[in-house]
Amino acid sequence: MTDTVDWVAIDWGTSNLRGWGIAADGAVLFEKSSPKGMGKLTREEFPMALSELLEDVSSTRGTPLDVLICGMAGARQGWLEAPYLEAPTDLRDLGRGAVFPDAGRSDIKAAILPGVCQRNGGDNVMRGEETQLLGLASLQPGYSGMVCMPGTHSKWAQLSGTRIERFSTAMTGELFELLRTHSVLRHSLGGDLEGPGRKEGFAAGAEAGLAHPEQLLGTLFEVRAGSLLSGRQPDWCAGYLSGLLIGTEVGSNRHLMGNEPIPLIGSPALCALYADVLAMAGASGAPQDATQIVLAGLKAARSNAA
Amino acid sequence: MTDTVDWVAIDWGTSNLRGWGIAADGAVLFEKSSPKGMGKLTREEFPMALSELLEDVSSTRGTPLDVLICGMAGARQGWLEAPYLEAPTDLRDLGRGAVFPDAGRSDIKAAILPGVCQRNGGDNVMRGEETQLLGLASLQPGYSGMVCMPGTHSKWAQLSGTRIERFSTAMTGELFELLRTHSVLRHSLGGDLEGPGRKEGFAAGAEAGLAHPEQLLGTLFEVRAGSLLSGRQPDWCAGYLSGLLIGTEVGSNRHLMGNEPIPLIGSPALCALYADVLAMAGASGAPQDATQIVLAGLKAARSNAA
Repeated sequence: MTDTVDWVAIDWGTSNLRGWGIAADGAVLFEKSSPKGMGKLTREEFPMALSELLEDVSSTRGTPLDVLICGMAGARQGWLEAPYLEAPTDLRDLGRGAVFPDAGRSDIKAAILPGVCQRNGGDNVMRGEETQLLGLASLQPGYSGMVCMPGTHSKWAQLSGTRIERFSTAMTGELFELLRTHSVLRHSLGGDLEGPGRKEGFAAGAEAGLAHPEQLLGTLFEVRAGSLLSGRQPDWCAGYLSGLLIGTEVGSNRHLMGNEPIPLIGSPALCALYADVLAMAGASGAPQDATQIVLAGLKAARSNAA
Repeated sequence: MTDTVDWVAIDWGTSNLRGWGIAADGAVLFEKSSPKGMGKLTREEFPMALSELLEDVSSTRGTPLDVLICGMAGARQGWLEAPYLEAPTDLRDLGRGAVFPDAGRSDIKAAILPGVCQRNGGDNVMRGEETQLLGLASLQPGYSGMVCMPGTHSKWAQLSGTRIERFSTAMTGELFELLRTHSVLRHSLGGDLEGPGRKEGFAAGAEAGLAHPEQLLGTLFEVRAGSLLSGRQPDWCAGYLSGLLIGTEVGSNRHLMGNEPIPLIGSPALCALYADVLAMAGASGAPQDATQIVLAGLKAARSNAA
């Protein structure tokens, strides 16, 4: 390749690791990924995982290659703890909060961005999403309002430009998996979960969750009772459970939404489900390209730190 | 013993099995228990489990010994399915809905009481609790109002004398165990869960759940964040999680309560927690002796069937 790598952007999550080579003009020269997420590594294994990811990449400037990392690598149980910024805070300060782990080789200079915590308004923490929020603020300057980041632990953040005012975390994705695999509901969810009944079940569950988010503990059991009494099939039950949880999550955040579409940052499939439920709630969602968002965040953090 | 056993009352749950020998005048002559709950048995193993429980008991009347069973033995995956009565229904009909499994010996005549289901007002099912409700109606004739049966799957029923109007199931106990053992919250709940912080954590969690039952998905994660940010210890976190779940359950049922104390049927420790939370909600709970209740229910079912 004729372009030379100016620096490397890394999103180091719990489950995997993604990296992009960035040229001096901001162009993305390559993308690499690895399954070596934070959750699979001991502290000592991080330098090697990074070296493997970047094995054919080297600095051509005669100085060490800058590698800027966001996400769980900065957790207490990660590579090197990057202390949280505390919300409300300006996300342009992310770069200045970075810590510098030893990459074990002189030609790489690694930096890990901090997460954001919240002490007033409910203890809360995020690592990785703050960089996405900065990316959104960078791609949509001046946006003020809620942002939803669906996932294992969904984040809802109130953004004012580059400032994060407050946020919450919903354990929606994790609860779906727990209930599907370990609870009494598993008896109703064994089989083909992607059958034709999934969509109808999802709509019914979402409607129930939106209408009565305070009834979640009680409505969950109706998944089981529905298969016992009404012959509901696993695909319908899986859809109902998914819709119920997402509907409850959206319903409990409904009072925080304005009239503007809520940016959705996450996997395309999940963002589409959230957009459907937001529409059912009389709001709307605007799915974003999550890769563009995190790259924009890492670039903005780098330029603010410089 | 000089008294002779007239019949045997059995509460056959998922986890264990309890039996009482009853004299013709209703006196309890003995109590026996076994860990052979429905969840541990194949269909073929029920007769032997019953015989083991009753190995030194025999009919002295020259006719087969009546054994009246309530609970999960009548589930589809139990000994013999006892079709549900459908709420609203009069629980005095329970006896007439019994089914008669083959106990494998001519000196025992076993009968299993039905559970109750609900199709309108949300699919729901119960097995065992309907007999407790009949017992409560028998011990407190004319009681009308909510009854709470805390447990793995808590039941809330609207009772009018011997009539069950409607009911719901909250997966509170099961969710506590799932979250404690399998979720990200387990990192905050490893260690001594019964320490001095448990009570304070419980009160804080119950307050949060009562105030905002619609925020459960979001508040759950604060258990994790609280240990990361505020140094909350495992005992406090366990108390908070327990209080949050029970507070959410009670809060979501608050609108159904009148001024009379809510009868609580369950383990004494759990009923005490629910009574505390009901008091925080401006209501009150009246813990019952669960053994007396189920025995009264089996006796009433037997006499109504005769």
